[in-house]
Amino acid sequence: MNANVTGQLARRNSIVPVSRHLLYIAQNAFDRPTLVIDSQAVARQYVALAQGLGRARIHYAVKANPEPQILRRLTRMGANFDAASRAEIEMCLAAGAKPSQISFGNTIKRPADIAFAHEIGITHFAVDALAELDKMAVHAPGARVCIRLLVEATGADWPLSRKFGCSATMALSLMDRARELGLVVSGLSFHVGSQTREPQMWADTLDQVAKVWQMAKAGSHALTLLNIGGGFPASYGSEVMEPNRYAQEVMALVNARFPDAVEIMAEPGRGLVAEAGAIAAEVLLVSRKDANDLHRWVYLDIGKFSGLAETMDEAIRYRITTDHSDEQAGPCILAGPSCDSADVLYEKQLYQMPLELKSGDRVVIHSCGAYTTTYASVGFNGFPPLDVVVI
Amino acid sequence: MNANVTGQLARRNSIVPVSRHLLYIAQNAFDRPTLVIDSQAVARQYVALAQGLGRARIHYAVKANPEPQILRRLTRMGANFDAASRAEIEMCLAAGAKPSQISFGNTIKRPADIAFAHEIGITHFAVDALAELDKMAVHAPGARVCIRLLVEATGADWPLSRKFGCSATMALSLMDRARELGLVVSGLSFHVGSQTREPQMWADTLDQVAKVWQMAKAGSHALTLLNIGGGFPASYGSEVMEPNRYAQEVMALVNARFPDAVEIMAEPGRGLVAEAGAIAAEVLLVSRKDANDLHRWVYLDIGKFSGLAETMDEAIRYRITTDHSDEQAGPCILAGPSCDSADVLYEKQLYQMPLELKSGDRVVIHSCGAYTTTYASVGFNGFPPLDVVVI
Repeated sequence: MNANVTGQLARRNSIVPVSRHLLYIAQNAFDRPTLVIDSQAVARQYVALAQGLGRARIHYAVKANPEPQILRRLTRMGANFDAASRAEIEMCLAAGAKPSQISFGNTIKRPADIAFAHEIGITHFAVDALAELDKMAVHAPGARVCIRLLVEATGADWPLSRKFGCSATMALSLMDRARELGLVVSGLSFHVGSQTREPQMWADTLDQVAKVWQMAKAGSHALTLLNIGGGFPASYGSEVMEPNRYAQEVMALVNARFPDAVEIMAEPGRGLVAEAGAIAAEVLLVSRKDANDLHRWVYLDIGKFSGLAETMDEAIRYRITTDHSDEQAGPCILAGPSCDSADVLYEKQLYQMPLELKSGDRVVIHSCGAYTTTYASVGFNGFPPLDVVVI
Repeated sequence: MNANVTGQLARRNSIVPVSRHLLYIAQNAFDRPTLVIDSQAVARQYVALAQGLGRARIHYAVKANPEPQILRRLTRMGANFDAASRAEIEMCLAAGAKPSQISFGNTIKRPADIAFAHEIGITHFAVDALAELDKMAVHAPGARVCIRLLVEATGADWPLSRKFGCSATMALSLMDRARELGLVVSGLSFHVGSQTREPQMWADTLDQVAKVWQMAKAGSHALTLLNIGGGFPASYGSEVMEPNRYAQEVMALVNARFPDAVEIMAEPGRGLVAEAGAIAAEVLLVSRKDANDLHRWVYLDIGKFSGLAETMDEAIRYRITTDHSDEQAGPCILAGPSCDSADVLYEKQLYQMPLELKSGDRVVIHSCGAYTTTYASVGFNGFPPLDVVVI
């Protein structure tokens, strides 16, 4: 471990315990970009969220990070899971989860995947369209379906596109149609938007959903399940609320509006695993396009196609530290290693990096536990996918 | 093969021979999204480009599609290759190429990759920065380097970012520095921009490069090599010029400006393989968010993270056909199968799809031979990477 890192760790020691994954990165060499993720930190976050969520059941959004060790640890802690495909269902089973602990939350399902899930005993499916109900009726006769609502834009850092969910009137039609098809309508689901930083931002969305809930009941659909989805924030540098308190405040808003919801489920993904991991990477080149350029170009050995897909449109601004972190910094454009002109991480808003930075220097990219490993391409430009170490 | 497809093929038969890859798709079932690429079509395109390029040597940009059968076929035809990494170099060697046929064109190289390339006898490297020259001097002493220029925006469909290349004055400094370091400056390279539809669009760029070429000579750097890069257009639906004629016209512009360039190389990637392949995929769901919505949502079993990464910002608008192609069409938003809200292919500009389209229908996505297979994620949402069949 070099002196700067030790110094940094020592200074941090006085305030908070050093993160195990950062210590592991500091003490090891890696021959390619590697995500190091701390399963103990995931477990702690799970406990904090579970405490705050109270009566709500956690279904971990597997797509955020399906590493077997993470899934096994969460299974042992009694977590449930939300899967997006047959492959993800199989990963949960392999980690020891029972079909009753797994929901199939993707509203766009392959018919063969529906049949598989139904056959092994999965009972919770999400649906937002008439044609999907038809598929369900054929391949999972009698199954429980939860109708996903499209909610209006919220205060989330990244409000979602309109890809998932349907309008209130369509939701009510779907409930009627599901009954005709012999399916059981269990309740409603929605997603408040990724990185919803303040619990209060949930209020409007919950009001919209509660209206549909009441209309459904008036229409003689005895709903029992409310799935509040994800949206639990992770810190990418700026402060976020303690997970326990955040979840507690969200649940206060939920309970006030849905006293009659018998089952409540939540699907944290990013909020559960993002902060538990960091990527160890390396500077490949620091250059200027012209001697008079005011900013540098810094090229890393990881980019948009090898793990950092969420830098698309500069949506996530990762915090990056180096051994030079205490020295003078200056603006740069940050880019990946591929021969693809679009593989630029931060350009619209320049990134401050140490002026001393040079080829071969280690960089640590923080809060990378979610949406990095499986987003990586199979081998674009011949670069291998992101390596992972679970500690 | 169903009647509609046969009909379509028959009608096309009267004008042009049916594409082998489309015939293969029509005659086969696939259990997941599959790229079918015709190595004979790649070979024909190679011959056409080679004829048009005359004295210029083709270095196929391996990153566009590194399928072993494609690389072997091109090797047998005497092609050269441009590699972006050690892994790509190894793929070329495995396909039978000699190190003398391989250039290492990535300007952002891992030091260990430089050493490997140098050791096996690769002599052509691209460089655009002082720090990269330092790496070259250490790991490939005495090597030939080509300086990559940053050229001003052109008429390309997608002008490149400023990621690669350097200014004219920086290029001249690099030449002096390379000489001090014992490296041999071979010449200049540039990239005119992806999908440069008209040969005439090369003129301005070539003028910029010729100016630097002359300045270098005046500065006693006897340049011999001009690398004109890629930019050769592929058709994504609208007409593009015949490859032979296009290349010929570009070469006329080159020869007029660089009569003293002893070696000329070109690096077509997309222009060589894109049109030779198509993806067989399937509709998973057609829905409306509300009964009153004017457009539908069409969800395919392939999306932005499983092969169609170039739909990012709706940059490439693929032509998509179905068995319903002759029937009435209407507007829709086209999206991928993942639980990711960003996995939407075309939304800003709605896509026209048959009104009869339904879950389970086959779709064929055309001109997918380039930048699809290796861009696919390793398993986002549990979906497998794009499958490939080379015929």
